[in-house]
Amino acid sequence: MSAATNTFVKENEQRFLEELKEFLRIPSISTLPEHKPDVERAAGFVAEQLRHAGLENIEIISTAKHPLVYADWLHAPGKPTVLCYGHYDVQPADPLELWQTPPFEPTLRDGNLYARGAADDKGQMYMHIKAVEVLRAVHGNLPLNVRFLIEGEEEVGGESIARYVAENPDKLRADVALVSDTEMFAPGLPTLCIGLRGLVYLEVEASGPARDLHSGLFGGAAPNAVFGLIELLAKVKNLRGEVQIPGFYDDVEAPSPAEKESWARLPFSEKEFLKEVGSSRLTGEPKYPVLERIWARPTFEVHGIAGGFTGAGSKTVIPAKAAAKVSARLVPNQDPDKIVAAIRDFIRRKAPKGIRTEVRVLSASPGLKVNPDHPAIEIAAKALTEIFQQPTVFIRLGGSIPIVGDFAKHLGIPTVLMGFGLPDDGLHSPNEKYHLANYYQGIMAIAHFFERYGGQ
Amino acid sequence: MSAATNTFVKENEQRFLEELKEFLRIPSISTLPEHKPDVERAAGFVAEQLRHAGLENIEIISTAKHPLVYADWLHAPGKPTVLCYGHYDVQPADPLELWQTPPFEPTLRDGNLYARGAADDKGQMYMHIKAVEVLRAVHGNLPLNVRFLIEGEEEVGGESIARYVAENPDKLRADVALVSDTEMFAPGLPTLCIGLRGLVYLEVEASGPARDLHSGLFGGAAPNAVFGLIELLAKVKNLRGEVQIPGFYDDVEAPSPAEKESWARLPFSEKEFLKEVGSSRLTGEPKYPVLERIWARPTFEVHGIAGGFTGAGSKTVIPAKAAAKVSARLVPNQDPDKIVAAIRDFIRRKAPKGIRTEVRVLSASPGLKVNPDHPAIEIAAKALTEIFQQPTVFIRLGGSIPIVGDFAKHLGIPTVLMGFGLPDDGLHSPNEKYHLANYYQGIMAIAHFFERYGGQ
Repeated sequence: MSAATNTFVKENEQRFLEELKEFLRIPSISTLPEHKPDVERAAGFVAEQLRHAGLENIEIISTAKHPLVYADWLHAPGKPTVLCYGHYDVQPADPLELWQTPPFEPTLRDGNLYARGAADDKGQMYMHIKAVEVLRAVHGNLPLNVRFLIEGEEEVGGESIARYVAENPDKLRADVALVSDTEMFAPGLPTLCIGLRGLVYLEVEASGPARDLHSGLFGGAAPNAVFGLIELLAKVKNLRGEVQIPGFYDDVEAPSPAEKESWARLPFSEKEFLKEVGSSRLTGEPKYPVLERIWARPTFEVHGIAGGFTGAGSKTVIPAKAAAKVSARLVPNQDPDKIVAAIRDFIRRKAPKGIRTEVRVLSASPGLKVNPDHPAIEIAAKALTEIFQQPTVFIRLGGSIPIVGDFAKHLGIPTVLMGFGLPDDGLHSPNEKYHLANYYQGIMAIAHFFERYGGQ
Repeated sequence: MSAATNTFVKENEQRFLEELKEFLRIPSISTLPEHKPDVERAAGFVAEQLRHAGLENIEIISTAKHPLVYADWLHAPGKPTVLCYGHYDVQPADPLELWQTPPFEPTLRDGNLYARGAADDKGQMYMHIKAVEVLRAVHGNLPLNVRFLIEGEEEVGGESIARYVAENPDKLRADVALVSDTEMFAPGLPTLCIGLRGLVYLEVEASGPARDLHSGLFGGAAPNAVFGLIELLAKVKNLRGEVQIPGFYDDVEAPSPAEKESWARLPFSEKEFLKEVGSSRLTGEPKYPVLERIWARPTFEVHGIAGGFTGAGSKTVIPAKAAAKVSARLVPNQDPDKIVAAIRDFIRRKAPKGIRTEVRVLSASPGLKVNPDHPAIEIAAKALTEIFQQPTVFIRLGGSIPIVGDFAKHLGIPTVLMGFGLPDDGLHSPNEKYHLANYYQGIMAIAHFFERYGGQ
């Protein structure tokens, strides 16, 4: 660990802030066609910053949608290579009237920088670039090799980078990936995320009568597609919330006792969580603590359902068709294809009489786990602990970060998920913010991680 | 029975046909604002025809929507009074390209008259007027008293006539109502409908979390409003289709053994019915024959459901809200208010944990039964049998005809449901038709009913 890097960061805080503000002023909203020039401008800004930090082989790579930015510095033979990932695109800012200050005019209040993209992900990805700059300024070179691959489509599905990673494994060869697009579990608590849930997402369609029927003339003897779908989906879980699909839990790998113990020590309040949910009580498998339910247990959800008459007033129709969007979150060691097959089979077998079903698979990706004993994880944890002066906690995330799966699948590497957001940063919401102290300490932590992982 | 009335009808067939065609040429589509003048023209046509038939006190009564037409002839003191009901409005004709001949250019093919409204209900209501004309022509006067109340809103809810009946019970005083807006069970089979199901119609709304949540971050511990509603509604019926709401079947009056026997003798083919439904099999309470299920058993249907994400692609949301339209068809002796209360109670008690529910009642009307021993029914059956040379069958209808309930509630009278449509007449569909022989024989049957009921 080099005290010089910390000093350099401290001396350059003001400049680092101004640079980030410049980045945040670009409204690079990837989902809105009218912002395509801004998205391209943001890609150019990233490329320029990478160049300024001393990176080489900089490329702005055109894709079917928005450009990728690649760069590398590979002059540390024998040392590990870290693949830094982030995204320069942001969510739309509406509803604009709920912002206290304009979303693309970054504003400092109470130690936080308010702007769309401040935490997700411009503020976090920019730290990787600054960490490289700091190390080059302090040491003249880098303690290890780095590659950067930054995308502009994360908020709209990230298809281009997925294809690029699949097609360019040699170009992207690395020992580990580094992603800063997650949160710290609580303010001041250094956090590494070492598990993600996977997802299989399906559409289920149910058909009953050949056409909508009059419920007066046929009610009591004709199958109802909406009720059929309701009956079918209700069978998926019992009243305790346990999924009844045979084999669904077969391959679930339970978290280790050590991991469970560490979760139990986290500053987690079920009451606060319930407040965030905003319902009268929580649900799910009662025998598992809440964090285990959302991090390490597979789920079955119905995301939407539609069928029959839903306009104003009444219409006495027996609906011919109904459809639902459903998904299962998966945990490590569950095979998405096996789960899809089990769901398909269950739906076929349990369809009520008179109801035909059709299942379409929209996506299927596995859960992922990073071994906390992996040297990169161990070192990242130490670097975080040093900077934040608290033991680093290991958590999981109940959602999916598809790129982490792509890195595992195509590059064969684990990912260090070192996030510096805070739970109240308001990602995707009005008044998104980023805690400035985390920005500066994060740059230090990343620099220290590079130093230590490079053996300095 | 007077052979003279039959002779008069036969001698005037051509004129009766031309008059009906003139009526059918008026596109009195009540739901389309651009046809409002046509609807008014049709009301005027009806008034003029009533006058021509010798009726008196003719009124075209303005309402909030479309006019009612009233007329009476009350010069048979001591004799019963029949209130004739029908409607002069029709359904829209689209899709026009499916009509073999234009919907408002009545065309004769194979003994059927093709036009929108031919059977529903212009052709049938016009027979009441012709029956009066025939009797006046043959006998110089009528054997009983009649009132006519014809509406122009039947296809759009019939609110105006409901209000009018409720507000004018003295003006409409009668012993029995006569409605010809139903079908014969099979061609050539004279039919009286003596039972209708009632209907309670409700909206059920379920709320889970305060807002839509990310299923990655909350899935496994947060209640899902769509799944909650699914779970709740699935509990309403068991796998045999039996409603599980306590008290739901308590007051159901079973059809008499004689009625059930008569249904068993009807020319009903379950195979044909299944073909009409168009599904792989029928459903419902297995211990009841199909006709009993659709005529004399209460039902629970979900007419529509909506909630969460239902667009293209996938969105991993835990929905905050979901809503369904549901109804129960009721049979005679069930109290709609009691059933509404039972449904409300069930929904409140069975709502899954974390799910709040709200129930809104959109309508509630009881099932109705006419005593087949009522003199008007007995006489109507005899009149039909004489004309069609087959024993009259007594059936029920699984749907509701709200005006029949209004007559019962506000005027305290039963209704003779003497319909002459055929199951393949295509009501509300392209190529609607009316079987001409039924038109002429129906006029005779109605005239005979008036004669006999008036004691001639």
